[in-house]
Amino acid sequence: MSRPYRIALIPGDGIGKEVAPEGLRAVRRAAERFGLALEFTEIGWASCDYYRQHGTMMPDDWKQQLAGMDAIYFGAVGWPATVPDNVSLWGSLLKFRREFDQYVNLRPVRLFDGVPCPLAGRKPGDLDYLIVRENTEGEYTNLGGTMFAGTEREIVIQESVFSRHGTDRVLKFAFELAASRARRHLTVATKSNGVAISMPWWDSRADEMAKAYPQVAVDKQHIDILSARFVLQPQRFDVVVASNLFGDILSDLGPATAGTIGLAPSANLNPERRFPSLFEPVHGSAPDIYGRNVANPIAMIWSGALMLDFLTGGQGAGRAAHDAIVRAIETVLREGPRTPDLGGSASTTELGEAVAALI
Amino acid sequence: MSRPYRIALIPGDGIGKEVAPEGLRAVRRAAERFGLALEFTEIGWASCDYYRQHGTMMPDDWKQQLAGMDAIYFGAVGWPATVPDNVSLWGSLLKFRREFDQYVNLRPVRLFDGVPCPLAGRKPGDLDYLIVRENTEGEYTNLGGTMFAGTEREIVIQESVFSRHGTDRVLKFAFELAASRARRHLTVATKSNGVAISMPWWDSRADEMAKAYPQVAVDKQHIDILSARFVLQPQRFDVVVASNLFGDILSDLGPATAGTIGLAPSANLNPERRFPSLFEPVHGSAPDIYGRNVANPIAMIWSGALMLDFLTGGQGAGRAAHDAIVRAIETVLREGPRTPDLGGSASTTELGEAVAALI
Ligand SMILES: CC(C)[C@H](C(=O)O)[C@@H](O)C(=O)O
Ligand SMILES: CC(C)[C@H](C(=O)O)[C@@H](O)C(=O)O
Repeated sequence: MSRPYRIALIPGDGIGKEVAPEGLRAVRRAAERFGLALEFTEIGWASCDYYRQHGTMMPDDWKQQLAGMDAIYFGAVGWPATVPDNVSLWGSLLKFRREFDQYVNLRPVRLFDGVPCPLAGRKPGDLDYLIVRENTEGEYTNLGGTMFAGTEREIVIQESVFSRHGTDRVLKFAFELAASRARRHLTVATKSNGVAISMPWWDSRADEMAKAYPQVAVDKQHIDILSARFVLQPQRFDVVVASNLFGDILSDLGPATAGTIGLAPSANLNPERRFPSLFEPVHGSAPDIYGRNVANPIAMIWSGALMLDFLTGGQGAGRAAHDAIVRAIETVLREGPRTPDLGGSASTTELGEAVAALI
Repeated sequence: MSRPYRIALIPGDGIGKEVAPEGLRAVRRAAERFGLALEFTEIGWASCDYYRQHGTMMPDDWKQQLAGMDAIYFGAVGWPATVPDNVSLWGSLLKFRREFDQYVNLRPVRLFDGVPCPLAGRKPGDLDYLIVRENTEGEYTNLGGTMFAGTEREIVIQESVFSRHGTDRVLKFAFELAASRARRHLTVATKSNGVAISMPWWDSRADEMAKAYPQVAVDKQHIDILSARFVLQPQRFDVVVASNLFGDILSDLGPATAGTIGLAPSANLNPERRFPSLFEPVHGSAPDIYGRNVANPIAMIWSGALMLDFLTGGQGAGRAAHDAIVRAIETVLREGPRTPDLGGSASTTELGEAVAALI
């Protein structure tokens, strides 16, 4: 018998701590049903609670502790009232993404039956696409600096860094993904008419990659009009690939057009499996609603489904478990119970139990 | 008698050439009615037609030719089939913005009666806000470069440049504007949790400026969730201030949520009037529909209204002319005629004539 998949469960902060148990419940239930062996290690660090006690977000040996894991199942991080966001995020989540080389951030956007859509006249099926976000470099850097600091002449330089290595591999992932789907359509986000060094180069890498995928229809769009089209023509999209910053924006905007960011899952992937991949809801720690057990756990549960699918390479028991979880989510969204964000009065726990019962 | 206001009319490319005459028609009509003396100079350069003949977008003495003008009334530029966008834009529009120090790009977002809204259940009044975009620096640069070019090791650096001078003045404009409005609410776009040098600094400048405006309620939001809220909670916004890139994205997204980018106007302002300000529709040259006289001229006409308002400092005849044009636009949007983008079959000319007749 092969060894169990090893998963680190990191609830993090705020509602991360409330949705994590429900994610765990659903994932365990699906694993049991489809005969997947999972071994969980619950971790309290990578949280602002830990920071308050230790002055760092994570212990020194965090990498060793996690390196043997197959996946990290992550709630949310951040408690800005006591720890500045840049400290908590650069000290945990962004470190994972970068040091575990999780260079693909995959974020599905889908409108479900039963979820009120903020776009007029759209029905399930009209919004169903995948965002592939570069997740390790690009605009997210702390490189640059300030000249004449604190004076009237102050000048601040911020550097973005794109490598061919980093760009080509995420483009390749997106092209492969598009090629594997029925529509074979790939939208490439750009802003080559304004961001005049990196973006024309990004376009040229996309053009180069496109040569190897003649079966994929490629549509390059500037991020401004692309954002507009997420609202005006969502049926247009199948797979969308974007730089770190543009992907960040699109993957909040897309889920918003599908009803709520509260449902959106994400997979931070190291496709080669040299390091653990990380699965987390797109929503944050939501301090404003924490402590009342009202957070919607579906994004966490759905992220768990993506995790099981990835662990088994999109095949066999993992794929079956993924599909069963997604079907249970579909049913609950259509028939209830509902948490307050979707107009109901069910608790986080009730929703989690309802999903688990359907798996 | 004071001298007439001098206006350079630059139609540019594509539908810019079709909407410009309708803008001119409305502006002339309003000026006549309210006793504003205007003097127009029509200019054929700053266009791809000119580029094809001369190999540059503008003559060498463009600055001298325009420096005596009070305003530039601009259609659209770009004809990517023959001139790459970065050549046409950096050779004209972006030059104007920068060399004439038009550091404020003001873009109103408003849902009109009679315009189908892509957001469910929204009515006129729910979307009514102003975007103030920094327009000369920030993420729009051609600074940076490539190392190991053309090899596997290729690395591309793109630099963003923010100055205190450039940041403070646009923040000040936005705070003043917010302070002058009924709701006194200002949203500041940021991404300090990811773009880790420039954006925390941008936030600190906003905090500093806020001290001088205790009457303004300030709401800092990360660009990802802010984009989502443009869709989910548009009533929340009054004045929104953003960097060059973030403002670019928001000012396509906002108008999209209000129905169509085809209606959105913009004012590229040098508030101190040391240089001419520029007024242009947000939409581009739209090569795909050019030549059929079907483009909607309302964004051009509305931009003309902003121009008259600015020329007279938001007072007297200019303000009256602005209001009369906007009322005429409201009537036409409610009662027709309509161009094909809004479901009708009227031509650009018919729409322009209808608006002018109502002024
Ligand atoms: C919290 C923040 C740093 C993060 C990001 O910008 O990547 C978040 O918005 C996300 O999308 O995962
Ligand atoms: C055409 C392009 C360079 C321009 C910009 O990005 O500023 C346009 O999108 C705009 O918003 O005016």
